[in-house]
Amino acid sequence: MNNKRSEVSGAVIRRLPRYYRCLLRLEEQGTVKISSRELARIMDLTASQIRQDLNCFGGFGQQGYGYSVSALKEEIARILGLDGRKKMILLGAGNLGKAIVGSLDFEGSGFDLMAIFDTNEWVVGSEIREYPVISTDKLEDFCHEHHPEAAILCIPQEGAELLVPQLVELGVRSFLNFSHYDIDIEFSNVAVENVYIADSLMTLSYRAAALEEEQE
Amino acid sequence: MNNKRSEVSGAVIRRLPRYYRCLLRLEEQGTVKISSRELARIMDLTASQIRQDLNCFGGFGQQGYGYSVSALKEEIARILGLDGRKKMILLGAGNLGKAIVGSLDFEGSGFDLMAIFDTNEWVVGSEIREYPVISTDKLEDFCHEHHPEAAILCIPQEGAELLVPQLVELGVRSFLNFSHYDIDIEFSNVAVENVYIADSLMTLSYRAAALEEEQE
Repeated sequence: MNNKRSEVSGAVIRRLPRYYRCLLRLEEQGTVKISSRELARIMDLTASQIRQDLNCFGGFGQQGYGYSVSALKEEIARILGLDGRKKMILLGAGNLGKAIVGSLDFEGSGFDLMAIFDTNEWVVGSEIREYPVISTDKLEDFCHEHHPEAAILCIPQEGAELLVPQLVELGVRSFLNFSHYDIDIEFSNVAVENVYIADSLMTLSYRAAALEEEQE
Repeated sequence: MNNKRSEVSGAVIRRLPRYYRCLLRLEEQGTVKISSRELARIMDLTASQIRQDLNCFGGFGQQGYGYSVSALKEEIARILGLDGRKKMILLGAGNLGKAIVGSLDFEGSGFDLMAIFDTNEWVVGSEIREYPVISTDKLEDFCHEHHPEAAILCIPQEGAELLVPQLVELGVRSFLNFSHYDIDIEFSNVAVENVYIADSLMTLSYRAAALEEEQE
């Protein structure tokens, strides 16, 4: 890699999973080589944008020869750190937590989900997929014993405000944050990816208004 | 507004809901005026970025006097189209659908959620919050009668591939898309906001790797 990961812009970082998904699909379809122009068409980007993005990481393939789909996919997986096995816990076994556990590929994304924590005694002791649901009272003991490095927060803001400082203290450094608690403003030296589903609904409202405006 | 909505860059559009949330909170806290510098600090942006963003929409406030929190909030709400009442349906009453219905403020985001559709006969006929769950068999009749303009897709890719062409045919033009079906590539003249939760997990993997690299 030419650049340090921390020097790459947010927009490029956000496109990497899209490249990865796209290349995975191409590989499944049996595509061996692809030109930046063709990749651009599939991804709805420009060819020069794709060359620029990949140059952030040292460049791949040779001008005019196209990219090897599987080599590029592997390289992007490596950049994304998908080859890792970072121990992860999930907080909140409500509908969102269940949806996340039921739909995400943790291993394929570089994580090893260990357990789910919840305060609701009705779900504590059950399993979601093969993952045990444990009482939040036992969070501290669990962290001392198993040292998870990452957490998914499917809990409300107030819960996150209470638990995140404790988790950081216990060594958790990476957060996939669905709560509206601003972890990255409160703490430094943490890796946070915020998902604001409510923002996406407002963005859709904007796009719908833009579409109407165009058609007037 | 100086510019047409369709001419504003994606990055600016994505920041608008953040501005809105931030201003809403400031208003609730009783803040009346705010400088671009202070707003920048809270939002972790630069003051010049904020001035540039707001200039896309004709500029607000007077240099040196700061912004009126409530006037700026109202103006951003108007730009986002939050004052609208676009009729909306949701497809898929699984965990994700339930989480969405349970957590989002549809009215505050410019939408009027009318009904939830699902194929599972165990949930058809029930209600989630006050919204009825209707059989997907009745989707066409419902659209003919009520003319929804927007849909949230909490269904798998195969379901979306089947239903989206029908929905577009029936007049639905805006999609909040949690399925991995590429609506915007298949159709033009639609407004689509894709939410790829799986991508956020990969992005977190990257950020965790970047954090580790920094600390080495």
